[in-house]
Amino acid sequence: MGGDHAPAAVVAGATEALEESGNRFSIILVGQEEKIRKELAAHPRGVDCRVEDARDVIDMHDAATAALKTKKHSSISVGIMLHREGKADAFVSAGHTGAVLSASTLLLGRLKGIGRPTMGAMIPTETTPCLLVDAGTNIDCRPKHLFEFAVMGSVYVSSLLGKDNPRIGLLSIGEEDSKGNEVSLEAFRLLKQSTLNFVGNIEGGDILKGKVDVAVCDGFLGNILLKFGESLPAFFKTKFKAFAARNLFNTLIVLLARRGMRAIMEELDYQEHGGVPLLGVNGVSIIGHGRSTPKAIKNMIFRAEEMVMHRVHLQIQEAILKYI
Amino acid sequence: MGGDHAPAAVVAGATEALEESGNRFSIILVGQEEKIRKELAAHPRGVDCRVEDARDVIDMHDAATAALKTKKHSSISVGIMLHREGKADAFVSAGHTGAVLSASTLLLGRLKGIGRPTMGAMIPTETTPCLLVDAGTNIDCRPKHLFEFAVMGSVYVSSLLGKDNPRIGLLSIGEEDSKGNEVSLEAFRLLKQSTLNFVGNIEGGDILKGKVDVAVCDGFLGNILLKFGESLPAFFKTKFKAFAARNLFNTLIVLLARRGMRAIMEELDYQEHGGVPLLGVNGVSIIGHGRSTPKAIKNMIFRAEEMVMHRVHLQIQEAILKYI
Repeated sequence: MGGDHAPAAVVAGATEALEESGNRFSIILVGQEEKIRKELAAHPRGVDCRVEDARDVIDMHDAATAALKTKKHSSISVGIMLHREGKADAFVSAGHTGAVLSASTLLLGRLKGIGRPTMGAMIPTETTPCLLVDAGTNIDCRPKHLFEFAVMGSVYVSSLLGKDNPRIGLLSIGEEDSKGNEVSLEAFRLLKQSTLNFVGNIEGGDILKGKVDVAVCDGFLGNILLKFGESLPAFFKTKFKAFAARNLFNTLIVLLARRGMRAIMEELDYQEHGGVPLLGVNGVSIIGHGRSTPKAIKNMIFRAEEMVMHRVHLQIQEAILKYI
Repeated sequence: MGGDHAPAAVVAGATEALEESGNRFSIILVGQEEKIRKELAAHPRGVDCRVEDARDVIDMHDAATAALKTKKHSSISVGIMLHREGKADAFVSAGHTGAVLSASTLLLGRLKGIGRPTMGAMIPTETTPCLLVDAGTNIDCRPKHLFEFAVMGSVYVSSLLGKDNPRIGLLSIGEEDSKGNEVSLEAFRLLKQSTLNFVGNIEGGDILKGKVDVAVCDGFLGNILLKFGESLPAFFKTKFKAFAARNLFNTLIVLLARRGMRAIMEELDYQEHGGVPLLGVNGVSIIGHGRSTPKAIKNMIFRAEEMVMHRVHLQIQEAILKYI
């Protein structure tokens, strides 16, 4: 029931995922049964989906913690319970981010040694993508939280992107060891002592250069940086329009260049990639954007499958236990 | 003597400024006299510059505070003293940022009510430019420092860009009043109580939309955001090259579109605009990038002139006194 286009987009994405995967996995759709069945009727592959009824709907205006208490039978709570009870291997939602976050943390529990579960975001760079972590989940962080983000990010990137020994950078205001704010300087010390492939402080300009595979920061900075990046396509569109309007030659150029520009801009549209996992909980929970399209939902399901296959949460558990 | 291309670029920029301004102001060049005279010889307009000898040179590898103590006759200290003594109306440098910052604060003094002098950076947006303040001067900030940045930014933008009642936004992780980190939430309260044109919290994506004239944040975030933005031209260049390499048609498109792209990218090259003023000190001190070209130096001098004409530091003094 989560997301702006639910349940239509969710059902469409789920059936597409089944179709593309050729039944490698099965899907349980959780939510108001009659609405889901109605959508399923339109999809030939839909018959393979099980439906689990959940009457309550948490909408975007609800406060997360309050909603979880008053709406006990939301698709979020019911779905995560299925995962907790082992009836599902992973949970995927495009619903209320805060509610999915809270419910996942409460119902699945945090991994031992993890103070703050986190969500990262993949950012395109001049070379291979970089995981920005935390991307907005944890606002005020202590040094040990940044350290945890680095450990979780390292495991995630190495198992899902197949990068051995990912390069970890700590976002700061200069490359020298002495540069940083109070929290980052102490996090630097923790990272330096670890066995992670810590390359040291990185500057804001190093992300797009592809200098690291994981860029670590608190969620306040991560969220602002991410949203700044997401606003670039609109910014350039406006600038190109102004350029095109100047004369006929420019108009022609922009018309011709449009396809190429669109391809590059799509790379910047992080949401396209479809959902981000909540790392640090005892299970697999993927959270998608409220605007998720069927394609995004499909990608989220595939990501969930990968997370399960690579046992990412167990790997994180193992990695963090080295440091406690 | 400051900057990668000193004193050549500085002398060239100064003489260009004199030429363009038609003697509206005079310039005192501060530094090792024989080196400056040698450069001046190459510039016909150079004869109008006075030279003030300063033997010491603070280089980029010096620690700011230590260098100011051991190199008492640096062009930075000598130049700022000229301003302090009223022999110059403003000080401009492309030298060691930290040293200019410290010397300006120590020798000129902070304005009454200002805890932290600040430097902002103008960022292009879809509409009119936005001042991001602080841009890296103050790393760990308390709420009242963010409030001071807002007051100083508001005065700067209204006097120099002629914007009445500039819109002030506080960078945060959501627009709602309740969104933010510990420091920003308290800063929000201070801003809300003020007579500033405070539009509330803004998100990272609101900057390029042109939603505000002044975006307030601490220098840690400001620096990282700014450097992220500065890395965009290189990122897009790489992406365009890859796009062009795909086939002959693409190559042609990119060749044709190159000029337009360059114009748009130049807008993103914040440094082009030439130096930023240190706001909150009792005087006019403009700090430029180490890479400053003659054009950047010239722009810095013009900016200094404007700051003097508009008596920006006196206006800031008046504005902040309302709140203490």
